[in-house]
Amino acid sequence: MSGYRFYQKASEVYNSRRNLYNLLVITSVSGGGLLAFANNNPARTAYADAAGGAHIRRKKVVVLGTGWAGTSFLKGLKDPSLDVEIVSPRNYFAFTPLLPSVTNGTVEARSIVEPIRNIVRKKQFDVQFREAECYKIDTKNKKVHCKSTQQNNVGGSDEFTVDYDYLVIAMGARSNTFNTPGVVEHTHFLKEIEDAQKIRKTVIDCFEKASLPNISEEERKRILHFVVVGGGPTGVEFAAELHDFVIEDLAKLYPDLKSYVTITLLEAGDHILNMFDKRITQFAEDKFRRDGLDLKVGSMVTKVTDKEICTKERATGKNVSIPYGMVVWSTGIGTRPVVMDFMKQIGQTNRRVLATDEWLRVEGCEDIYALGDCATIDQRKVMEDIASIFTKADKNNTGKLKADDFNEVINDITERYPQVVIHLKKQQVKNFLQLLKNAQGEDELDIEKFKLALSAVDAQMKNLPATAQVAAQQGSYLADCFNRMNDCEKNPEGPLRFRGSGRHRFKAFRYKHLGQFAPLGGEQTAAQLPGDWVSIGHSTQWLWYSVYASKLVSWRTRALVISDWGRRFIFGRDSSKI
Amino acid sequence: MSGYRFYQKASEVYNSRRNLYNLLVITSVSGGGLLAFANNNPARTAYADAAGGAHIRRKKVVVLGTGWAGTSFLKGLKDPSLDVEIVSPRNYFAFTPLLPSVTNGTVEARSIVEPIRNIVRKKQFDVQFREAECYKIDTKNKKVHCKSTQQNNVGGSDEFTVDYDYLVIAMGARSNTFNTPGVVEHTHFLKEIEDAQKIRKTVIDCFEKASLPNISEEERKRILHFVVVGGGPTGVEFAAELHDFVIEDLAKLYPDLKSYVTITLLEAGDHILNMFDKRITQFAEDKFRRDGLDLKVGSMVTKVTDKEICTKERATGKNVSIPYGMVVWSTGIGTRPVVMDFMKQIGQTNRRVLATDEWLRVEGCEDIYALGDCATIDQRKVMEDIASIFTKADKNNTGKLKADDFNEVINDITERYPQVVIHLKKQQVKNFLQLLKNAQGEDELDIEKFKLALSAVDAQMKNLPATAQVAAQQGSYLADCFNRMNDCEKNPEGPLRFRGSGRHRFKAFRYKHLGQFAPLGGEQTAAQLPGDWVSIGHSTQWLWYSVYASKLVSWRTRALVISDWGRRFIFGRDSSKI
Repeated sequence: MSGYRFYQKASEVYNSRRNLYNLLVITSVSGGGLLAFANNNPARTAYADAAGGAHIRRKKVVVLGTGWAGTSFLKGLKDPSLDVEIVSPRNYFAFTPLLPSVTNGTVEARSIVEPIRNIVRKKQFDVQFREAECYKIDTKNKKVHCKSTQQNNVGGSDEFTVDYDYLVIAMGARSNTFNTPGVVEHTHFLKEIEDAQKIRKTVIDCFEKASLPNISEEERKRILHFVVVGGGPTGVEFAAELHDFVIEDLAKLYPDLKSYVTITLLEAGDHILNMFDKRITQFAEDKFRRDGLDLKVGSMVTKVTDKEICTKERATGKNVSIPYGMVVWSTGIGTRPVVMDFMKQIGQTNRRVLATDEWLRVEGCEDIYALGDCATIDQRKVMEDIASIFTKADKNNTGKLKADDFNEVINDITERYPQVVIHLKKQQVKNFLQLLKNAQGEDELDIEKFKLALSAVDAQMKNLPATAQVAAQQGSYLADCFNRMNDCEKNPEGPLRFRGSGRHRFKAFRYKHLGQFAPLGGEQTAAQLPGDWVSIGHSTQWLWYSVYASKLVSWRTRALVISDWGRRFIFGRDSSKI
Repeated sequence: MSGYRFYQKASEVYNSRRNLYNLLVITSVSGGGLLAFANNNPARTAYADAAGGAHIRRKKVVVLGTGWAGTSFLKGLKDPSLDVEIVSPRNYFAFTPLLPSVTNGTVEARSIVEPIRNIVRKKQFDVQFREAECYKIDTKNKKVHCKSTQQNNVGGSDEFTVDYDYLVIAMGARSNTFNTPGVVEHTHFLKEIEDAQKIRKTVIDCFEKASLPNISEEERKRILHFVVVGGGPTGVEFAAELHDFVIEDLAKLYPDLKSYVTITLLEAGDHILNMFDKRITQFAEDKFRRDGLDLKVGSMVTKVTDKEICTKERATGKNVSIPYGMVVWSTGIGTRPVVMDFMKQIGQTNRRVLATDEWLRVEGCEDIYALGDCATIDQRKVMEDIASIFTKADKNNTGKLKADDFNEVINDITERYPQVVIHLKKQQVKNFLQLLKNAQGEDELDIEKFKLALSAVDAQMKNLPATAQVAAQQGSYLADCFNRMNDCEKNPEGPLRFRGSGRHRFKAFRYKHLGQFAPLGGEQTAAQLPGDWVSIGHSTQWLWYSVYASKLVSWRTRALVISDWGRRFIFGRDSSKI
């Protein structure tokens, strides 16, 4: 009885949400609003009927991980004939670009997470979620071995196995310590929600400790010395946010301590934000120096002890010991042990990261895909396939190629080897034919001349950056492939198989760079947008707000984050040790 | 330069808040709005000048604790000639009545805490806050010994001492386990913010664990069995909130598990909510049974192991073992070890709780006050002082008292011994004189007859309940005494000192009961208001919302809690393990 009443009420509330959503569209930031709306229309009903009657064995897709790649894959998946099981130690998706904001309370941790089950229950097909960690992938028996990550009183066997037909590895990466001694023991990473929460607590702890009466001046300085290692976007954003937090909020609450605070940013290279345009780097470095942040470039960390961080200065060759209160380590990513094991198992022994082909399929495995930070696409080189390409083009087996011969395969070549396109653009050559002509000056060319013309092309190959944007695009690409697998099996749409016969089923994954932000604190942000367009300042901060608001995974998180920003503007950031 | 700019901006934001505050008054719930506004006007300026020039040694007031009593004392304190130092392991005040709401995510932990330094910085006089724990009170040297509660890399000596002129002990209590084995190791308390957060995480953990594929039916039932020990307001509210969380939110996300969930409430007595009116108890018990909560009264917990809780049923005398997934222990409070030590030191050895006089001064100590849950008021008995009272009234030393003799001291007697007033009310006697007349039927009476007339009065004495309301009223009472200490030294306003000479400086503390709520879940609340007025149902839930919103400590927390309630109505409670 009562349960029913609850349900009735709950569904009333649910229906009334539709209107609220519409309201939120209006309050949402203009630019992002449209993008957001497009995200939020999963085709819920289209496959409902189809799913109803099936009694044949469904293909089982096992997804490892609920980060950007895994969640984006899951959200895109629509094929009702699939049986999906997700295994992840986290029962939520976290909007990681806002992690630095969580460290200082600009945004609440809970506002940037979305329970996976909230996403799952919108699906019209079977999805199971298991909160567990995969510790072994058994490709022979098509099984993954998992164990629960909970330690407290739950009893029963903690381990279980899951069979798969297709395996999607999206486990992300771990922080890279470069085996520097003491890093794991004494520093904070900034990869998980829990890390951000711990950092926040530690910052307040440092201020409280420094407020105690028995602390010497020297100790007080040490305790309030915050060190950030790594001048990438995360490290820079964290340092900037911390500076804002100290200046705007903590200085008011701990007025006596303001003069003791130092924030140091250590970067091993010559510049911070070195993946960005030089103008951004310059602006950021100038701003940090103006703000009083201690920026040390060319500084390699060699060791971390409980109270000191030791560096080697490249300029002088000297070893320096810096006393600190808190260190945040943000120097890039490394491969997880379970992925390393898997790589050994499948013979990828000499690589640092799991390699996939351009369709995100793990090299050497038929039914295993890998995406996001745990994998990298091993782009096929033109030079490896040069003979096959020549043969495919030379239909009549004359040993000579004419312009006409090419016309049929040109699209396949540029599709299959995107480095060709980049090379053309860089060389400012109109098209592929022109490139061959430039190389030879003749209409016909043999294999040696063909090789020569394309010899420089492969130098244009670049690994994709380990960003949320790449992972999210890979996730929806792969979901799209799964959705259309039967269709594409029959009508392949990919490029020619130059070394085999027929065509690839799908077009290869192609990353579309939409730009990157580097928040610099003080309501200023730098952005590098496609076409090398650079934008820095307060207006970019608002662009940042609107893009991030629109990219959040659900209306719930969107409303929460926007209201968090509002709270912060009105009340400042909270400094209680919670 | 840049720092200055930040400051300028910060103060602009601050000024603009005034307007926002006004806006919030409008949006705030009507009934509570007025109360709240009264809370929010500390006399900031009145003492500013007086504080300026003083170079004499200020009296040092040390406050131990930042709970209801300590914070309410601090908020009320206005005397600029005081030097205040607060020592507490928590750098925030927590609005504890909303703790059960935090366990299920109806309200965020951060929304119900206010940093003590936010309160401190509004004061016009010197207030120091130290995040530390007092582990020893040294009355001889007027010192408290403290140590930092932080464990991580902070270095330096963790211990320090603080001198005091006046000491205010407001350390609260700990959960009472009645020395039941296994309680500390295996159950959750619900006293601190961290407790509430842990409970929330454990509930989700249990659901996730129960979702794993290798769990037997029996295990699944065990894991989803939530046991609440103690049928007081906290236990009842938690059980009700948990039931709502499961029915309204988790049942949607874990549809397969709904049938496995059991919530059991164990109460040693015959009824839950036994401090409330019988109608409320009856309603609550009926509602719980209707909702499917397993209510077990007359059930004493004898032992808790990692997977079972053992009880002795009073009705049958049988010992029962109940497998559980999580136990929340909420059976009342006990005295903290440091307070026990202090009691030994000052000779209060045979008591369970620290005793104070009616002015909240610790018995046997001149300059130490204790309030809130850590202390109890030891009301002076009329019978102890009967001879002195008689003597004071019998001005002419005739050994006989007439009605005229009394008129002068009647007010002092009823002021000093409030049990007299309660007795008169219960006996339905018009006034004190009538009581004496009833006893004797004569106009004059001697000491023996006087004793007889008052013999039943002391039976009316009752200890105050250990509630936030009592602690808060004690805090503001004591602050008021401190504020007017010099005035009242000269012009005492308290009752006659019957055993000494002159008058007491202050009127004694008198608790004013404003009513008590017992939220029962499903948007229903019971309230027992002054005058034994009982109100139960949905409308009372709205009363509860408005009273709690108005009682929150700051406009910030008020806005946060109200927006949390709004979030919950719109989006439901969050179920991610954060």
